[in-house]
Amino acid sequence: MSLFKIVKHDTNSSARAGLLHTAHGTVRTPVFMPVGTQATVKTLSPKDLRDIGAGMILNNTYHLYLRPGAELIRKAGGLQKFSAWYGPILTDSGGYQVFSLSELNKITEKGLHFQSHIDGSRHFFSPEKVVEIQRDLGSDIMMVLDECAPYPCDWQYARKAHQLTVQWAERSLQAFLDHPERHGYPQMLFAIVQGSVYPDLRRQSAEALVQMDFPGYAIGGLSVGEPKSAMFEMTQVCSEILPPNKPRYLMGVGKPSDLLRGIELGIDMFDCIMPTRNGRNGTAFTTKGQIVIKNARFREDFSPLDERCDCYTCRTFTRAYLRHLFNAQEILALRLISLHNVHFYLRLMEAARRAILKNEFSSFKKQFLARYAANNSENEDADTDSES
Amino acid sequence: MSLFKIVKHDTNSSARAGLLHTAHGTVRTPVFMPVGTQATVKTLSPKDLRDIGAGMILNNTYHLYLRPGAELIRKAGGLQKFSAWYGPILTDSGGYQVFSLSELNKITEKGLHFQSHIDGSRHFFSPEKVVEIQRDLGSDIMMVLDECAPYPCDWQYARKAHQLTVQWAERSLQAFLDHPERHGYPQMLFAIVQGSVYPDLRRQSAEALVQMDFPGYAIGGLSVGEPKSAMFEMTQVCSEILPPNKPRYLMGVGKPSDLLRGIELGIDMFDCIMPTRNGRNGTAFTTKGQIVIKNARFREDFSPLDERCDCYTCRTFTRAYLRHLFNAQEILALRLISLHNVHFYLRLMEAARRAILKNEFSSFKKQFLARYAANNSENEDADTDSES
Repeated sequence: MSLFKIVKHDTNSSARAGLLHTAHGTVRTPVFMPVGTQATVKTLSPKDLRDIGAGMILNNTYHLYLRPGAELIRKAGGLQKFSAWYGPILTDSGGYQVFSLSELNKITEKGLHFQSHIDGSRHFFSPEKVVEIQRDLGSDIMMVLDECAPYPCDWQYARKAHQLTVQWAERSLQAFLDHPERHGYPQMLFAIVQGSVYPDLRRQSAEALVQMDFPGYAIGGLSVGEPKSAMFEMTQVCSEILPPNKPRYLMGVGKPSDLLRGIELGIDMFDCIMPTRNGRNGTAFTTKGQIVIKNARFREDFSPLDERCDCYTCRTFTRAYLRHLFNAQEILALRLISLHNVHFYLRLMEAARRAILKNEFSSFKKQFLARYAANNSENEDADTDSES
Repeated sequence: MSLFKIVKHDTNSSARAGLLHTAHGTVRTPVFMPVGTQATVKTLSPKDLRDIGAGMILNNTYHLYLRPGAELIRKAGGLQKFSAWYGPILTDSGGYQVFSLSELNKITEKGLHFQSHIDGSRHFFSPEKVVEIQRDLGSDIMMVLDECAPYPCDWQYARKAHQLTVQWAERSLQAFLDHPERHGYPQMLFAIVQGSVYPDLRRQSAEALVQMDFPGYAIGGLSVGEPKSAMFEMTQVCSEILPPNKPRYLMGVGKPSDLLRGIELGIDMFDCIMPTRNGRNGTAFTTKGQIVIKNARFREDFSPLDERCDCYTCRTFTRAYLRHLFNAQEILALRLISLHNVHFYLRLMEAARRAILKNEFSSFKKQFLARYAANNSENEDADTDSES
């Protein structure tokens, strides 16, 4: 049985609706994975996530390796038992965090020498070690270690980074076979396409990785500062080469409009810290665009964050109250807006999937964006890419 | 119909089980009121509070007057509609906060001149104004403005403060009659007995206030640094004078053992920031005493906070995971431990009430304290009295 099944192809674009089978349940794609860096989606409980219909969440290998340590999570019986989120989990490889958060001391063919952003302690990640850590973590989908080139980055550097990533993918696959699962259920290993903003490198990278027959492929190294046009050009280049019958995952993306564009290009999986990070900054996503709750115009606004939303926050509280909580620095504000934002992203993916099933994705996308953009004047620059 | 009905008197002590009828529901006493200073019990949602069976909560007149302002809450339709907690609410008068948090500029017979702890702005509280503010807030039980004498404090000062408080109580009662309710449901006004640690002053204060026939009485100015023995002596002195058929409220108390001792002396109502403040400090109340979750001995402890507890936190998470969340500075840790602690306090009050109904309060108290004290070596000094 294949682990990924496409249920419906959109006839006007590359969008597709699928089912991704994991040891902890089946995920309907396209899927947005809320980010749970430290084995918790910030401010939300596993029950909150289940209540709003989260399918799969993302946890962070780099952070969990440093704290509380992979061995402790292995002893707990894996991430699900440790964190009480019993649905599917994907762990990233930690490569991106080593490059963006830690002090990176040395890259060799063997791996990455780095110092912890928490206490400065010295560590080493090899492709093999990162697979072993993720065996301890017991995530349903593990990611290979990659070299995530910065942006901008010249063609020579990008080529070297992508070649190392391909080499490491091969070693990761071998390590995956050498080290069987530790928690009594199967895990999958996905590869990551690199190549910066160079179409020829992206093609080389994708083609080399496709040869190795991974069960799924991520497109990495995007949403790191390059123009939107380059991001989507690279997504398209990769998507066209990646096997149509395997899941495609666009890492670290993005805004609501980015997700819809990605789906149109054949992407099945997304993750991004925006809904939770913006939630904690008091910025809410609504069907009419983003709003910044601390703004004075909400002082006596007794309507919900989003009239069209049925999440607990919108069913229960007014903008005036949320503004009060946020201004009074009450933790509940961060939680209620995060809950709403994650709910918003999940509902957007569900609506996109329904539209694909009805072969109406293009008109759905157009309608959503028209409403969303109409009032979306606030805080549009609130998109960065790390949540430590 | 009386608003307070005693269902059962304990035959071996002054403990009693009662029903307190308010416009937003009937409260079973003895009751512990979680503190929601800024119209939110810190980290918890109204649904959390309902799920763990909270009866009545406390909100803070001083804080809400300053932010977001009583007028906004009046426009929202009162505290219940504003905060979406639809159960009973008691508001304190703000007197204690003016003395402990703000910069108090001048006390006159007319009232208190003070500066906001938020922005230094100048304000004035008179007994009349505080009643009017609480009419705007729409709390089920309002408290009179009092002068809360510091500890230690000499007899002369304590006498002056209690006399002013008695005078203000009379003016509050008149203001209560002059300014009818604004939200279409009745509110009650409780008086506050002062007198520091002087039995003669406490007696004078209680007797004068009883003459005014308030529907309920609080004992204020305790748990401010005086020895435990003095606190309970004063509680007893007041309790014996206060009318047996009216609710008695011991303000700002306390630890689990203090609550049981208070019940034994005839107290019906309590509030304290300990369960939520300790929750945010990572200290949990358990049936075997307090534990500090960051301690290294919990690193690989895969048991719940409290084996005997059925709250969401204890049914779902291990000490090892909670310790990880706390050490990783995750907001969820503060929420989960606060939830457990408030649940612990509410269950303790329920168990006390059941014991009173079965006429077994003394043996219940003895059993609880024996278990609680046996292992209670940690963080016993974690009791202060303000939560701003």
